[in-house]
Amino acid sequence: MKKWDILKRKEVYKNKYFSVVEEEFRLSDGKTSKYYLVKSCDFVSVVPVEGEHIYMEKMDRYTLRRRIIEIPMGGIEEGETPLAAAKRELKEEMGITAKRFRKLGFFDASKGHSGHKGVLFVAEELTLGEPEPDLVEKESNIEVIKLKLRDVPDLIRQGKITDSHTIASFYLYMLHCKSPNKQV
Amino acid sequence: MKKWDILKRKEVYKNKYFSVVEEEFRLSDGKTSKYYLVKSCDFVSVVPVEGEHIYMEKMDRYTLRRRIIEIPMGGIEEGETPLAAAKRELKEEMGITAKRFRKLGFFDASKGHSGHKGVLFVAEELTLGEPEPDLVEKESNIEVIKLKLRDVPDLIRQGKITDSHTIASFYLYMLHCKSPNKQV
Repeated sequence: MKKWDILKRKEVYKNKYFSVVEEEFRLSDGKTSKYYLVKSCDFVSVVPVEGEHIYMEKMDRYTLRRRIIEIPMGGIEEGETPLAAAKRELKEEMGITAKRFRKLGFFDASKGHSGHKGVLFVAEELTLGEPEPDLVEKESNIEVIKLKLRDVPDLIRQGKITDSHTIASFYLYMLHCKSPNKQV
Repeated sequence: MKKWDILKRKEVYKNKYFSVVEEEFRLSDGKTSKYYLVKSCDFVSVVPVEGEHIYMEKMDRYTLRRRIIEIPMGGIEEGETPLAAAKRELKEEMGITAKRFRKLGFFDASKGHSGHKGVLFVAEELTLGEPEPDLVEKESNIEVIKLKLRDVPDLIRQGKITDSHTIASFYLYMLHCKSPNKQV
């Protein structure tokens, strides 16, 4: 990749969740242009599986004004490891603890606006318990649902699961953890 | 989904690509809280296929400071239909025209921050030609690559394709257009 020649960098907006940074850079022809980056923390994405089942959640999404099906995700807090964030989010949102977490990789979440990424974990050997939702999660009316892994592709195809991060996480899980002839 | 009781709405930041809207809403307990929404246009995502091959592109991504592999995507302009945007982006970024476009559905792009979505098309019966990049695309040094469809899952699994929107688009394409026993 070529080196972008950044001339100026300025934070032009900030709230408690993200900021916007304006960068002026030099074009190949010598002129200048600007890029606006949304800066927010990386997050974790957790695929909780038990045998041939996966746990997902239905929740009200404020940004979409819709109730959608997702897997647990949430920001990695300052000083927190991705693994600790994965454990926390799974417990907060679903009330689930897991004996085994494996990191499968990461994905770029929104490359047009932001450099932030999702770090993907699979959680196994699960114990169900009580969720411990934070303020926003509490308002989202999360309902934990148990699905057969083999039914998820149809839900995606039928447009019943629409969240790109959940779709990418599920597909990555299938590619990593299910052999080709087991794929559904 | 419950009705969010929105008390105030205010645009708190704006540039030529997106804006930030602050909304104050009432919590279940009667207190109030705020949500910050990134407002940007919906976009199209195009899967260009020819027989058992798919065209993808390598490009420098300013937000990531990395060169990544993607499929063509781009914002739907004011007054433009998604189909027109799909045709335009495929031509601009890859120089490809297609006789046949089919809409497969949509995905939520970044539900934590934004309500914007990607509208997914498959493009078939392709003719290769000269790209017509806009300013940002020109700076991204786009290189068109032709891959075997059956090699893409391995590239995703190996972390060589990391863009969640490309991963979700490819998986949706496979679910819609390839029968289960043909899946790779």
